[in-house]
Amino acid sequence: MSEEKNASLYKQVKRKLLDDIRSGVYKVGDKLPTELEFCEIYNVSRTTIRLALQQLDLEGRIKKIQGKGTFVVKGKIPHHTWAPISSFPEHMHDLGRRAESRVLETAVIPAASPFDELLNIPAQSPVTKVARLRIADDEPVSYEVSYIPWQTAPGLASDDLTGSLFKLLREKYGVHINRSVETLEPVVVEPEVAELLKIEPGTPVFLIKTISYVEPDTPVEYSTGYFRSDTSNFIIERQYRPEE
Amino acid sequence: MSEEKNASLYKQVKRKLLDDIRSGVYKVGDKLPTELEFCEIYNVSRTTIRLALQQLDLEGRIKKIQGKGTFVVKGKIPHHTWAPISSFPEHMHDLGRRAESRVLETAVIPAASPFDELLNIPAQSPVTKVARLRIADDEPVSYEVSYIPWQTAPGLASDDLTGSLFKLLREKYGVHINRSVETLEPVVVEPEVAELLKIEPGTPVFLIKTISYVEPDTPVEYSTGYFRSDTSNFIIERQYRPEE
Repeated sequence: MSEEKNASLYKQVKRKLLDDIRSGVYKVGDKLPTELEFCEIYNVSRTTIRLALQQLDLEGRIKKIQGKGTFVVKGKIPHHTWAPISSFPEHMHDLGRRAESRVLETAVIPAASPFDELLNIPAQSPVTKVARLRIADDEPVSYEVSYIPWQTAPGLASDDLTGSLFKLLREKYGVHINRSVETLEPVVVEPEVAELLKIEPGTPVFLIKTISYVEPDTPVEYSTGYFRSDTSNFIIERQYRPEE
Repeated sequence: MSEEKNASLYKQVKRKLLDDIRSGVYKVGDKLPTELEFCEIYNVSRTTIRLALQQLDLEGRIKKIQGKGTFVVKGKIPHHTWAPISSFPEHMHDLGRRAESRVLETAVIPAASPFDELLNIPAQSPVTKVARLRIADDEPVSYEVSYIPWQTAPGLASDDLTGSLFKLLREKYGVHINRSVETLEPVVVEPEVAELLKIEPGTPVFLIKTISYVEPDTPVEYSTGYFRSDTSNFIIERQYRPEE
Protein backbone atom coordinates (compact mmCIF):
# COMPACT_ATOMS: atom_id res chain seq x y z
CA MET A 1 0.00 0.00 0.00
CA SER A 2 1.21 3.48 -0.77
CA GLU A 3 1.67 6.08 1.96
CA GLU A 4 0.65 8.79 -0.49
CA LYS A 5 -3.00 9.22 0.39
CA ASN A 6 -2.38 9.13 4.11
CA ALA A 7 -5.84 10.45 4.98
CA SER A 8 -7.61 7.40 3.65
CA LEU A 9 -4.84 4.89 4.09
CA TYR A 10 -5.92 3.80 7.53
CA LYS A 11 -9.38 3.07 6.09
CA GLN A 12 -7.80 0.66 3.60
CA VAL A 13 -5.88 -0.99 6.42
CA LYS A 14 -9.05 -1.17 8.51
CA ARG A 15 -10.97 -2.74 5.62
CA LYS A 16 -8.16 -5.23 4.96
CA LEU A 17 -8.08 -6.22 8.62
CA LEU A 18 -11.88 -6.59 8.71
CA ASP A 19 -11.68 -8.77 5.60
CA ASP A 20 -9.03 -10.88 7.32
CA ILE A 21 -11.30 -11.23 10.36
CA ARG A 22 -14.30 -12.12 8.15
CA SER A 23 -12.37 -14.68 6.12
CA GLY A 24 -11.02 -16.31 9.26
CA VAL A 25 -7.34 -15.30 9.04
CA TYR A 26 -7.92 -13.86 12.53
CA LYS A 27 -10.72 -15.54 14.49
CA VAL A 28 -12.74 -14.39 17.49
CA GLY A 29 -10.49 -14.79 20.53
CA ASP A 30 -7.27 -14.68 18.48
CA LYS A 31 -4.48 -12.37 19.55
CA LEU A 32 -3.60 -10.00 16.71
CA PRO A 33 -0.04 -9.22 15.64
CA THR A 34 1.60 -6.26 17.42
CA GLU A 35 1.57 -2.79 15.88
CA LEU A 36 5.16 -3.26 14.73
CA GLU A 37 4.36 -6.63 13.18
CA PHE A 38 1.35 -5.09 11.43
CA CYS A 39 3.61 -2.35 10.01
CA GLU A 40 5.54 -5.05 8.20
CA ILE A 41 2.49 -7.12 7.23
CA TYR A 42 0.65 -4.18 5.66
CA ASN A 43 3.75 -2.11 4.84
CA VAL A 44 2.39 1.05 6.46
CA SER A 45 3.52 3.40 9.22
CA ARG A 46 2.83 2.78 12.87
CA THR A 47 0.54 5.84 12.98
CA THR A 48 -1.62 4.37 10.23
CA ILE A 49 -1.95 0.94 11.79
CA ARG A 50 -2.63 2.48 15.21
CA LEU A 51 -5.43 4.60 13.78
CA ALA A 52 -7.01 1.59 12.08
CA LEU A 53 -6.80 -0.47 15.28
CA GLN A 54 -8.20 2.40 17.33
CA GLN A 55 -11.25 2.74 15.07
CA LEU A 56 -11.87 -1.00 15.14
CA ASP A 57 -11.59 -0.86 18.93
CA LEU A 58 -14.08 2.03 19.09
CA GLU A 59 -16.44 0.08 16.84
CA GLY A 60 -16.11 -2.95 19.08
CA ARG A 61 -14.50 -5.35 16.63
CA ILE A 62 -11.21 -5.78 18.50
CA LYS A 63 -10.19 -5.17 22.10
CA LYS A 64 -6.85 -3.98 23.41
CA ILE A 65 -6.08 -5.44 26.80
CA GLN A 66 -3.35 -3.57 28.65
CA GLY A 67 -0.16 -5.64 28.84
CA LYS A 68 -1.74 -8.60 27.02
CA GLY A 69 -2.21 -7.49 23.43
CA THR A 70 -5.08 -6.86 21.06
CA PHE A 71 -7.74 -9.51 20.53
CA VAL A 72 -10.50 -10.15 18.02
CA VAL A 73 -13.87 -9.96 19.75
CA LYS A 74 -17.23 -11.06 18.43
CA GLY A 75 -18.05 -7.42 18.34
CA LYS A 76 -21.14 -5.32 18.23
CA ILE A 77 -23.16 -4.96 15.04
CA PRO A 78 -22.27 -1.54 13.66
CA HIS A 79 -25.22 0.60 12.57
CA HIS A 80 -23.83 3.50 10.57
CA THR A 81 -26.33 6.33 10.73
CA TRP A 82 -25.27 7.50 7.27
CA ALA A 83 -25.88 4.12 5.63
CA PRO A 84 -28.78 3.74 3.18
CA ILE A 85 -31.84 1.68 4.09
CA SER A 86 -30.76 -1.94 4.44
CA SER A 87 -32.70 -4.99 5.54
CA PHE A 88 -31.58 -7.06 8.52
CA PRO A 89 -30.64 -10.07 6.32
CA GLU A 90 -28.61 -7.83 3.94
CA HIS A 91 -26.91 -6.04 6.82
CA MET A 92 -25.93 -9.29 8.52
CA HIS A 93 -24.74 -10.77 5.23
CA ASP A 94 -22.44 -7.77 4.71
CA LEU A 95 -20.99 -8.36 8.18
CA GLY A 96 -20.49 -12.06 7.59
CA ARG A 97 -23.06 -12.96 10.25
CA ARG A 98 -25.79 -15.58 10.09
CA ALA A 99 -29.20 -13.87 10.24
CA GLU A 100 -32.47 -15.33 11.45
CA SER A 101 -35.84 -13.59 11.81
CA ARG A 102 -38.35 -15.33 14.06
CA VAL A 103 -41.93 -14.24 13.44
CA LEU A 104 -43.62 -14.03 16.86
CA GLU A 105 -46.93 -12.55 15.80
CA THR A 106 -48.86 -11.44 12.73
CA ALA A 107 -52.30 -9.91 13.06
CA VAL A 108 -54.67 -7.44 11.47
CA ILE A 109 -55.73 -4.94 14.12
CA PRO A 110 -57.76 -1.71 14.12
CA ALA A 111 -55.51 1.37 13.95
CA ALA A 112 -55.56 2.97 17.38
CA SER A 113 -53.71 6.13 18.38
CA PRO A 114 -50.89 6.91 17.58
CA PHE A 115 -50.70 4.53 14.59
CA ASP A 116 -53.60 6.15 12.74
CA GLU A 117 -51.92 9.57 12.88
CA LEU A 118 -48.43 8.25 12.24
CA LEU A 119 -49.58 6.25 9.24
CA ASN A 120 -52.01 8.95 8.12
CA ILE A 121 -55.01 6.59 7.95
CA PRO A 122 -58.50 6.75 9.47
CA ALA A 123 -58.84 5.67 13.10
CA GLN A 124 -59.98 2.05 13.41
CA SER A 125 -58.96 1.21 9.83
CA PRO A 126 -57.17 -2.14 9.53
CA VAL A 127 -53.42 -2.36 10.10
CA THR A 128 -51.17 -5.37 9.72
CA LYS A 129 -48.95 -5.94 12.76
CA VAL A 130 -45.79 -8.01 12.45
CA ALA A 131 -43.67 -8.78 15.51
CA ARG A 132 -40.27 -10.32 14.90
CA LEU A 133 -37.19 -11.29 16.84
CA ARG A 134 -33.94 -10.67 14.97
CA ILE A 135 -31.13 -13.09 15.68
CA ALA A 136 -27.50 -13.01 14.56
CA ASP A 137 -25.32 -16.07 15.07
CA ASP A 138 -27.89 -17.50 17.52
CA GLU A 139 -27.88 -14.35 19.67
CA PRO A 140 -30.96 -12.08 19.84
CA VAL A 141 -30.21 -8.62 18.41
CA SER A 142 -33.55 -6.82 18.40
CA TYR A 143 -37.27 -7.16 18.90
CA GLU A 144 -39.15 -5.29 16.21
CA VAL A 145 -42.84 -4.62 15.66
CA SER A 146 -44.01 -3.22 12.32
CA TYR A 147 -47.38 -1.67 11.51
CA ILE A 148 -48.43 -1.45 7.86
CA PRO A 149 -51.83 -0.14 6.66
CA TRP A 150 -53.75 -3.23 5.60
CA GLN A 151 -54.61 -1.67 2.23
CA THR A 152 -50.93 -1.10 1.45
CA ALA A 153 -50.33 -4.85 1.40
CA PRO A 154 -53.48 -6.96 1.72
CA GLY A 155 -52.62 -10.49 2.78
CA LEU A 156 -49.25 -9.52 4.23
CA ALA A 157 -50.09 -11.29 7.50
CA SER A 158 -50.11 -14.61 5.63
CA ASP A 159 -46.84 -14.05 3.79
CA ASP A 160 -43.45 -15.49 4.69
CA LEU A 161 -42.04 -12.73 6.88
CA THR A 162 -38.75 -14.37 7.83
CA GLY A 163 -36.90 -12.36 5.16
CA SER A 164 -36.82 -8.67 4.30
CA LEU A 165 -40.19 -6.96 4.80
CA PHE A 166 -39.24 -4.07 2.51
CA LYS A 167 -38.19 -6.49 -0.24
CA LEU A 168 -41.54 -8.28 0.09
CA LEU A 169 -43.44 -4.98 -0.06
CA ARG A 170 -41.41 -4.02 -3.13
CA GLU A 171 -41.57 -7.30 -5.05
CA LYS A 172 -45.03 -8.57 -4.15
CA TYR A 173 -46.99 -5.38 -3.50
CA GLY A 174 -45.16 -2.82 -5.66
CA VAL A 175 -44.60 -0.64 -2.58
CA HIS A 176 -41.22 1.04 -2.98
CA ILE A 177 -40.04 2.50 0.31
CA ASN A 178 -37.53 5.22 -0.50
CA ARG A 179 -36.97 7.03 2.79
CA SER A 180 -37.15 6.39 6.50
CA VAL A 181 -36.88 8.59 9.56
CA GLU A 182 -35.74 7.03 12.83
CA THR A 183 -35.62 8.43 16.33
CA LEU A 184 -33.47 6.85 19.01
CA GLU A 185 -34.23 6.65 22.72
CA PRO A 186 -32.45 4.89 25.55
CA VAL A 187 -35.04 2.94 27.54
CA VAL A 188 -35.08 0.36 30.27
CA VAL A 189 -36.49 -2.82 28.86
CA GLU A 190 -39.76 -4.38 30.04
CA PRO A 191 -39.58 -7.93 31.47
CA GLU A 192 -41.28 -9.59 28.46
CA VAL A 193 -38.94 -7.90 26.00
CA ALA A 194 -35.94 -8.67 28.22
CA GLU A 195 -36.86 -12.34 28.13
CA LEU A 196 -37.09 -12.32 24.34
CA LEU A 197 -33.75 -10.54 24.03
CA LYS A 198 -32.18 -12.79 26.69
CA ILE A 199 -31.01 -9.89 28.84
CA GLU A 200 -31.55 -9.01 32.48
CA PRO A 201 -34.71 -7.00 33.23
CA GLY A 202 -33.73 -3.38 33.81
CA THR A 203 -31.00 -3.43 31.17
CA PRO A 204 -31.00 -0.25 29.06
CA VAL A 205 -31.57 -0.77 25.34
CA PHE A 206 -32.05 1.41 22.27
CA LEU A 207 -35.66 2.02 21.32
CA ILE A 208 -35.84 3.00 17.66
CA LYS A 209 -39.07 4.34 16.24
CA THR A 210 -39.14 4.43 12.45
CA ILE A 211 -41.53 5.82 9.89
CA SER A 212 -40.92 4.70 6.32
CA TYR A 213 -42.26 6.46 3.27
CA VAL A 214 -43.00 5.91 -0.38
CA GLU A 215 -42.91 8.82 -2.85
CA PRO A 216 -44.19 11.48 -2.33
CA ASP A 217 -43.87 11.29 1.46
CA THR A 218 -46.65 8.81 2.12
CA PRO A 219 -46.01 6.85 5.32
CA VAL A 220 -46.45 3.09 4.78
CA GLU A 221 -44.74 1.57 7.79
CA TYR A 222 -44.29 2.48 11.42
CA SER A 223 -42.05 0.31 13.55
CA THR A 224 -40.63 0.12 17.04
CA GLY A 225 -37.40 -1.77 17.56
CA TYR A 226 -35.69 -2.65 20.84
CA PHE A 227 -31.98 -3.20 20.19
CA ARG A 228 -29.64 -4.82 22.70
CA SER A 229 -26.86 -2.38 23.44
CA ASP A 230 -24.25 -5.07 24.04
CA THR A 231 -24.67 -6.40 20.50
CA SER A 232 -25.42 -3.22 18.57
CA ASN A 233 -23.47 -0.04 18.12
CA PHE A 234 -24.78 3.17 16.56
CA ILE A 235 -22.08 5.18 14.84
CA ILE A 236 -22.33 8.79 13.68
CA GLU A 237 -19.71 10.49 11.54
CA ARG A 238 -19.72 14.26 11.13
CA GLN A 239 -17.68 16.71 9.11
CA TYR A 240 -16.87 20.29 9.95
CA ARG A 241 -18.33 22.78 7.51
CA PRO A 242 -17.14 26.33 8.06
CA GLU A 243 -19.82 29.01 7.91
CA GLU A 244 -20.12 30.95 4.67
CA MET B 1 -47.58 28.02 -1.16
CA SER B 2 -47.76 26.00 -4.35
CA GLU B 3 -48.87 22.39 -4.31
CA GLU B 4 -46.57 21.68 -7.21
CA LYS B 5 -43.58 20.31 -5.39
CA ASN B 6 -45.61 18.10 -3.10
CA ALA B 7 -42.65 16.05 -1.94
CA SER B 8 -40.99 18.98 -0.22
CA LEU B 9 -44.09 21.04 0.50
CA TYR B 10 -44.67 19.54 3.94
CA LYS B 11 -41.09 20.47 4.81
CA GLN B 12 -41.88 24.11 4.00
CA VAL B 13 -45.00 23.92 6.15
CA LYS B 14 -43.01 22.27 8.93
CA ARG B 15 -40.35 24.99 8.74
CA LYS B 16 -43.00 27.74 8.72
CA LEU B 17 -44.69 26.23 11.75
CA LEU B 18 -41.36 25.89 13.57
CA ASP B 19 -40.63 29.55 12.76
CA ASP B 20 -44.03 30.48 14.16
CA ILE B 21 -43.25 28.53 17.35
CA ARG B 22 -39.81 30.14 17.62
CA SER B 23 -41.12 33.66 17.08
CA GLY B 24 -43.86 33.15 19.65
CA VAL B 25 -46.94 33.05 17.38
CA TYR B 26 -47.57 29.69 19.06
CA LYS B 27 -46.11 29.36 22.56
CA VAL B 28 -45.31 26.30 24.68
CA GLY B 29 -48.64 25.06 26.06
CA ASP B 30 -50.70 26.70 23.30
CA LYS B 31 -53.29 24.68 21.45
CA LEU B 32 -52.59 24.74 17.73
CA PRO B 33 -55.25 25.36 15.06
CA THR B 34 -56.99 22.21 13.76
CA GLU B 35 -55.81 20.50 10.58
CA LEU B 36 -58.64 22.12 8.64
CA GLU B 37 -57.81 25.56 10.02
CA PHE B 38 -54.15 25.02 9.12
CA CYS B 39 -55.20 24.12 5.54
CA GLU B 40 -56.62 27.62 5.23
CA ILE B 41 -53.80 29.37 7.11
CA TYR B 42 -51.05 27.81 4.97
CA ASN B 43 -53.20 27.19 1.88
CA VAL B 44 -52.15 23.55 1.55
CA SER B 45 -53.90 20.19 1.47
CA ARG B 46 -54.86 18.29 4.59
CA THR B 47 -52.38 15.53 3.69
CA THR B 48 -49.55 18.05 3.62
CA ILE B 49 -50.40 19.67 6.94
CA ARG B 50 -50.93 16.26 8.56
CA LEU B 51 -47.50 15.11 7.41
CA ALA B 52 -45.87 18.25 8.79
CA LEU B 53 -47.65 17.86 12.14
CA GLN B 54 -46.79 14.18 12.28
CA GLN B 55 -43.07 14.87 11.80
CA LEU B 56 -43.11 17.60 14.43
CA ASP B 57 -44.87 15.19 16.77
CA LEU B 58 -42.26 12.50 16.09
CA GLU B 59 -39.51 15.03 16.73
CA GLY B 60 -41.18 16.00 20.00
CA ARG B 61 -42.00 19.64 19.21
CA ILE B 62 -45.80 19.28 19.39
CA LYS B 63 -48.08 16.73 21.00
CA LYS B 64 -51.43 15.49 19.79
CA ILE B 65 -53.72 14.60 22.67
CA GLN B 66 -56.64 12.40 21.64
CA GLY B 67 -59.91 14.36 21.78
CA LYS B 68 -58.21 17.52 23.02
CA GLY B 69 -56.18 18.85 20.11
CA THR B 70 -52.52 19.42 19.28
CA PHE B 71 -50.32 21.39 21.66
CA VAL B 72 -46.92 23.04 21.49
CA VAL B 73 -44.52 21.32 23.88
CA LYS B 74 -41.11 22.49 25.01
CA GLY B 75 -39.76 19.65 23.00
CA LYS B 76 -36.62 17.65 22.89
CA ILE B 77 -33.45 19.02 21.37
CA PRO B 78 -33.17 17.36 17.96
CA HIS B 79 -29.74 15.95 17.12
CA HIS B 80 -29.72 15.12 13.42
CA THR B 81 -27.11 12.49 12.81
CA TRP B 82 -26.48 13.86 9.30
CA ALA B 83 -25.75 17.39 10.56
CA PRO B 84 -22.22 18.76 10.32
CA ILE B 85 -20.13 19.34 13.45
CA SER B 86 -21.80 22.08 15.46
CA SER B 87 -20.96 23.47 18.89
CA PHE B 88 -23.48 23.39 21.71
CA PRO B 89 -23.90 27.21 21.69
CA GLU B 90 -24.40 27.25 17.88
CA HIS B 91 -26.84 24.36 18.02
CA MET B 92 -28.93 25.98 20.78
CA HIS B 93 -28.86 29.31 18.97
CA ASP B 94 -30.27 27.67 15.84
CA LEU B 95 -33.09 26.22 17.94
CA GLY B 96 -33.85 29.51 19.63
CA ARG B 97 -32.76 28.18 23.02
CA ARG B 98 -30.62 29.87 25.64
CA ALA B 99 -27.36 27.96 26.08
CA GLU B 100 -25.12 27.85 29.13
CA SER B 101 -21.99 25.76 29.68
CA ARG B 102 -20.91 25.35 33.28
CA VAL B 103 -17.26 24.34 33.67
CA LEU B 104 -17.11 21.83 36.52
CA GLU B 105 -13.47 20.82 36.26
CA THR B 106 -10.33 21.55 34.30
CA ALA B 107 -7.14 19.66 34.98
CA VAL B 108 -3.98 18.37 33.38
CA ILE B 109 -3.73 14.64 34.04
CA PRO B 110 -1.42 11.83 32.88
CA ALA B 111 -2.92 9.90 29.96
CA ALA B 112 -4.04 6.53 31.28
CA SER B 113 -5.64 3.75 29.25
CA PRO B 114 -7.74 4.09 27.09
CA PHE B 115 -7.04 7.79 26.45
CA ASP B 116 -3.45 7.25 25.40
CA GLU B 117 -4.48 4.78 22.72
CA LEU B 118 -7.57 6.71 21.64
CA LEU B 119 -5.60 9.94 21.35
CA ASN B 120 -2.57 8.18 19.93
CA ILE B 121 -0.17 9.65 22.51
CA PRO B 122 2.39 8.06 24.84
CA ALA B 123 1.05 6.61 28.08
CA GLN B 124 1.42 9.05 30.98
CA SER B 125 1.85 12.05 28.68
CA PRO B 126 -0.15 15.11 29.81
CA VAL B 127 -3.78 15.47 28.79
CA THR B 128 -6.11 18.39 29.48
CA LYS B 129 -9.42 17.29 30.97
CA VAL B 130 -12.45 19.55 30.74
CA ALA B 131 -15.74 18.58 32.41
CA ARG B 132 -18.77 20.67 31.56
CA LEU B 133 -22.48 20.69 32.19
CA ARG B 134 -24.55 21.85 29.22
CA ILE B 135 -27.72 23.72 30.06
CA ALA B 136 -30.53 24.90 27.75
CA ASP B 137 -33.16 27.28 29.11
CA ASP B 138 -32.06 26.48 32.69
CA GLU B 139 -32.46 22.74 32.17
CA PRO B 140 -29.44 20.40 32.15
CA VAL B 141 -29.01 18.72 28.77
CA SER B 142 -25.74 16.83 29.02
CA TYR B 143 -22.63 16.22 31.08
CA GLU B 144 -19.56 16.14 28.87
CA VAL B 145 -15.92 15.40 29.61
CA SER B 146 -13.29 16.20 26.98
CA TYR B 147 -9.71 14.99 26.86
CA ILE B 148 -7.22 16.90 24.69
CA PRO B 149 -3.48 16.12 24.46
CA TRP B 150 -1.77 18.88 26.44
CA GLN B 151 0.61 19.62 23.57
CA THR B 152 -2.29 20.22 21.20
CA ALA B 153 -3.38 23.25 23.22
CA PRO B 154 -0.98 24.18 26.05
CA GLY B 155 -2.71 26.41 28.56
CA LEU B 156 -6.20 25.28 27.57
CA ALA B 157 -7.05 24.49 31.19
CA SER B 158 -6.75 28.20 32.02
CA ASP B 159 -8.88 29.40 29.08
CA ASP B 160 -12.50 30.47 29.18
CA LEU B 161 -14.27 27.21 28.38
CA THR B 162 -17.85 28.38 28.67
CA GLY B 163 -18.12 28.76 24.88
CA SER B 164 -17.29 26.45 22.00
CA LEU B 165 -14.21 24.32 22.65
CA PHE B 166 -13.71 23.63 18.94
CA LYS B 167 -13.88 27.35 18.16
CA LEU B 168 -11.28 28.04 20.87
CA LEU B 169 -9.02 25.30 19.50
CA ARG B 170 -9.41 26.75 16.02
CA GLU B 171 -8.97 30.43 16.81
CA LYS B 172 -6.41 30.35 19.63
CA TYR B 173 -4.44 27.18 18.89
CA GLY B 174 -4.84 26.81 15.11
CA VAL B 175 -6.27 23.31 15.62
CA HIS B 176 -8.89 22.77 12.93
CA ILE B 177 -11.07 19.80 13.76
CA ASN B 178 -12.59 18.57 10.52
CA ARG B 179 -14.17 15.23 11.38
CA SER B 180 -15.62 13.40 14.34
CA VAL B 181 -16.80 9.86 14.94
CA GLU B 182 -19.40 9.22 17.63
CA THR B 183 -20.73 6.00 19.07
CA LEU B 184 -24.01 5.89 20.96
CA GLU B 185 -24.87 3.65 23.89
CA PRO B 186 -27.90 3.52 26.15
CA VAL B 187 -26.67 3.42 29.75
CA VAL B 188 -28.13 3.74 33.20
CA VAL B 189 -26.73 6.83 34.77
CA GLU B 190 -24.53 6.83 37.88
CA PRO B 191 -25.82 8.72 40.93
CA GLU B 192 -23.31 11.60 40.63
CA VAL B 193 -24.14 12.15 36.97
CA ALA B 194 -27.87 11.83 37.71
CA GLU B 195 -27.55 14.59 40.30
CA LEU B 196 -25.79 16.87 37.83
CA LEU B 197 -28.41 16.20 35.17
CA LYS B 198 -31.24 16.53 37.72
CA ILE B 199 -32.74 13.16 36.89
CA GLU B 200 -33.61 10.14 39.03
CA PRO B 201 -30.78 7.64 39.57
CA GLY B 202 -31.37 4.64 37.33
CA THR B 203 -32.76 6.72 34.48
CA PRO B 204 -31.42 5.56 31.10
CA VAL B 205 -29.45 8.16 29.15
CA PHE B 206 -27.45 8.31 25.93
CA LEU B 207 -23.71 7.88 26.37
CA ILE B 208 -21.90 9.34 23.39
CA LYS B 209 -18.20 8.70 22.93
CA THR B 210 -16.58 10.94 20.37
CA ILE B 211 -13.18 11.09 18.76
CA SER B 212 -12.43 14.26 16.81
CA TYR B 213 -9.70 14.57 14.22
CA VAL B 214 -7.61 17.13 12.42
CA GLU B 215 -6.24 16.43 8.93
CA PRO B 216 -4.90 13.87 8.17
CA ASP B 217 -6.76 11.74 10.68
CA THR B 218 -4.91 12.82 13.81
CA PRO B 219 -7.11 12.44 16.89
CA VAL B 220 -7.05 15.61 19.03
CA GLU B 221 -10.05 15.20 21.29
CA TYR B 222 -11.81 12.32 22.98
CA SER B 223 -15.02 13.01 24.83
CA THR B 224 -17.76 11.23 26.71
CA GLY B 225 -21.17 12.87 26.92
CA TYR B 226 -24.18 11.77 28.95
CA PHE B 227 -27.35 13.16 27.35
CA ARG B 228 -30.72 13.23 29.08
CA SER B 229 -33.18 11.29 26.94
CA ASP B 230 -36.16 13.42 27.92
CA THR B 231 -34.53 16.55 26.54
CA SER B 232 -32.58 15.16 23.58
CA ASN B 233 -33.68 13.27 20.52
CA PHE B 234 -31.38 11.56 18.03
CA ILE B 235 -32.80 11.46 14.54
CA ILE B 236 -31.55 9.37 11.63
CA GLU B 237 -32.77 9.75 8.08
CA ARG B 238 -32.02 7.10 5.49
CA GLN B 239 -32.66 6.75 1.77
CA TYR B 240 -33.17 3.58 -0.18
CA ARG B 241 -30.49 2.94 -2.75
CA PRO B 242 -31.25 0.04 -5.05
CA GLU B 243 -28.37 -2.31 -5.72
CA GLU B 244 -26.45 -1.90 -8.97
